Amino acid sequence: VEFDGPCMKTEVPGPRSKILAQQLESIQSVVQVNFFCDYEESKGNYLVDVDGNRMLDVYTQIASIPIGYNHPALTKVMTDPKNMGTFVNRPALGMMPPEQFSEKLVNGLMAVAPKGFSRVQTMACGSCSNENAYKAIFIWYRNKMRGTPEPTPEEVRTSVINQVPGCPDLTLLSFMGGFHGRTLGCLATTHTKAIQKLDVPSFDWPIASFPQLRYPLDQFERENAREEARCLEEAEDLIVKWNQKGRHVAGVVIEPIQAEGGDNHASFDFYTKLRGITKKHGCAFLVDEVQTGGGSTGKFWAHEHWGLDDPADIVSFSKKMLTGGYYQKDSFQPDKPFRIFNTWLGDHTKNLLLTEVIKVIKTENLLDQAKRSGKVMLEGLYDLQDKYPHLLSKARGIGTFCAIDVKDEDTRNLLLLKARNKGVVLGGCGTQSIRFRPALVFKEHHAHLFLDIFNDAITEL
Amino acid sequence: VEFDGPCMKTEVPGPRSKILAQQLESIQSVVQVNFFCDYEESKGNYLVDVDGNRMLDVYTQIASIPIGYNHPALTKVMTDPKNMGTFVNRPALGMMPPEQFSEKLVNGLMAVAPKGFSRVQTMACGSCSNENAYKAIFIWYRNKMRGTPEPTPEEVRTSVINQVPGCPDLTLLSFMGGFHGRTLGCLATTHTKAIQKLDVPSFDWPIASFPQLRYPLDQFERENAREEARCLEEAEDLIVKWNQKGRHVAGVVIEPIQAEGGDNHASFDFYTKLRGITKKHGCAFLVDEVQTGGGSTGKFWAHEHWGLDDPADIVSFSKKMLTGGYYQKDSFQPDKPFRIFNTWLGDHTKNLLLTEVIKVIKTENLLDQAKRSGKVMLEGLYDLQDKYPHLLSKARGIGTFCAIDVKDEDTRNLLLLKARNKGVVLGGCGTQSIRFRPALVFKEHHAHLFLDIFNDAITEL
Ligand code: FES
Repeated sequence: VEFDGPCMKTEVPGPRSKILAQQLESIQSVVQVNFFCDYEESKGNYLVDVDGNRMLDVYTQIASIPIGYNHPALTKVMTDPKNMGTFVNRPALGMMPPEQFSEKLVNGLMAVAPKGFSRVQTMACGSCSNENAYKAIFIWYRNKMRGTPEPTPEEVRTSVINQVPGCPDLTLLSFMGGFHGRTLGCLATTHTKAIQKLDVPSFDWPIASFPQLRYPLDQFERENAREEARCLEEAEDLIVKWNQKGRHVAGVVIEPIQAEGGDNHASFDFYTKLRGITKKHGCAFLVDEVQTGGGSTGKFWAHEHWGLDDPADIVSFSKKMLTGGYYQKDSFQPDKPFRIFNTWLGDHTKNLLLTEVIKVIKTENLLDQAKRSGKVMLEGLYDLQDKYPHLLSKARGIGTFCAIDVKDEDTRNLLLLKARNKGVVLGGCGTQSIRFRPALVFKEHHAHLFLDIFNDAITEL
Repeated sequence: VEFDGPCMKTEVPGPRSKILAQQLESIQSVVQVNFFCDYEESKGNYLVDVDGNRMLDVYTQIASIPIGYNHPALTKVMTDPKNMGTFVNRPALGMMPPEQFSEKLVNGLMAVAPKGFSRVQTMACGSCSNENAYKAIFIWYRNKMRGTPEPTPEEVRTSVINQVPGCPDLTLLSFMGGFHGRTLGCLATTHTKAIQKLDVPSFDWPIASFPQLRYPLDQFERENAREEARCLEEAEDLIVKWNQKGRHVAGVVIEPIQAEGGDNHASFDFYTKLRGITKKHGCAFLVDEVQTGGGSTGKFWAHEHWGLDDPADIVSFSKKMLTGGYYQKDSFQPDKPFRIFNTWLGDHTKNLLLTEVIKVIKTENLLDQAKRSGKVMLEGLYDLQDKYPHLLSKARGIGTFCAIDVKDEDTRNLLLLKARNKGVVLGGCGTQSIRFRPALVFKEHHAHLFLDIFNDAITEL
């Protein structure tokens, strides 16, 4: 059984966390460290820190804990002696996969594959998932342009030295406010905070505006529709313009909800039309579900809410999926070996864990749970913004994937600390938003508890 | 106790591997798959496949198994109940590290830190290690150029949209034949095979020639010295030229032995002088030890053979280190939070395993073992190339990190298959080389056994 609520013994970080931070500081930067955790003692929705503070976790390691801490189903996987060979011997999955590899993919990643996808490429984190999805897109696009997968001798020669035509001047279109990772390829499509990109060389690729919707949505229907039309027109214009100047847009990459960028939503109609534009212009459509995927929107994949028959060419994932990777349409499978490759191509340990996570999600109906808890959360957030209109605005979300804006960045940051000291772990996103990212085992009563404590924290501002 | 030798039941891949490959093919490309393994049955230096074939593994999952399969010390870590919390709950290590994080780093990565390094940044694989090392270099260089870590408003504004000056036109100098990973930043410094880079946009960055030494070394001393001088001059010229045109060379990245590129060696004198050039021109010197690090050269880090007091500014690692990451001089630690960051920043499970690996390396004196086994191997390879001069040449290596060239690519590939069917797993590198990458538990008698079987395979050509 889970704990019956938060239990705070000290401020967070407490004295023990501070000592550990001092120790760590001698070998690593600790400017980002919030506090140290006792992962053995943590359970379900509750994260316990090294000072014995027990907090309701509505951030879950940056949205990466799918079914809560120390779920017995996962402990069972780790203690099963027949899995030991997988845990202590990490295979090069692309060359020498373990016997159960295929079976675990079938019962794991493929069991939750978005409609229309019969192929999955495993990777290890969100960044290599997107980096390799980008490569798959570029390869696909060039093969299409060339009309054959066979490169010219000139392409072969120049590719090794980073020059055209072997390394072509193709581009990806991304959106302002989008976040797709921090390695150099991903970072070229990430446009959130300056500090994440400053001083790092990048690619000159087209960037379109992402709709900035006004809230409450029902009061601004016409304005928001106009804003979305403007962004769609801009995206299409950019594709046409960049294609014309010979720097073809091979693909468009977008999140179903811009998460790091501030939980920015667009209507399903916007995504539907954007999908249409990519088809019209022969660009691949990559939906980055690294943060949105895994069930917290009440569907396994956030893009399933769009209700399209053919919503994407590639869907990338990581975080709550434990492994990284991407689903791809058959045509994105490179024609030759070693075009998409690396030593490990993921970590089979995570595939074993994921298979159990998916079983738990299904048997415990956790997608429905996310819908129900999300309803409580969002209604509670609406109430709070009505109650504190000078402080809170733009409550929004799908399932438990919710957010709210605070009047400014400093107040937001203060509110995060106040909530934490009262026993709720939260995370910020964008400039002044708070994102709510509970695990899928977050029930209605957790939502009520969270709302109560959050309300208390607000009153202290 | 380990097995007493290979034991072959079928050709490899055998019938069971073929069936599994067929199954996997419906969801994933299998063009790269060699065979399927039984990781539970594998032990020490022996890899067992799903058809019951037991092979001496001189490739070790692309050089990534440090102390052999199913080492009892590692099984013990995985079955220790007090580690369970780490295994089933993957922390966001940068924000909420576990209690033992610092301690495990001290007894793990820092216990084998190269001389002069007191700081380590964990990452998850070789690619994110290098990508982030590159970022650390660019940030360091820009701060130096600016004279302050504080960016201008113009830099802040432009960085978000991939434009100068916020995303500066800095470059990294890399070497022909070098391999540093396959994500877009790493790939821009990788210059091995066309197929790894073809169709993927890249950065226009300077690339210097890597010395192509003639063998046997003692017969070509003068020629090789001239070749190395030529390459050094070229590297320095490139730095000067690119600095002059305003596309400053922020850093130089190189492997102590070009591994994927064909086990290309240069003299310690070459590296010493290159290190001098980077200092003279204010470039960071990044030594990529992803494949060479971890002990197989007989020292924990291959660059330690150079005997320098200050051999590097950053040393990146992964593979046999189980986790990824890089050691850095203090000045490469970014001044602000979230400049070098991602969700997981590695995987603490791997830190726990690595701590035990390092203990085993120390208590079992495995670095000395690598020297002794390497001596047997290299002498055996010399004998073989004397015996088959029309087939083999350029036997070379340090410790067990050895290689030999075969007369052409097809013969090399055929030899790999012949050896495998006789019970030795080997890997190729470069166009016509075979690389030998045994684990650190590879003893003299394994080396003899390998040489015998390799000799048999050669006679079948
Ligand atoms: S880039 Fe994904 S694990 Fe390294």
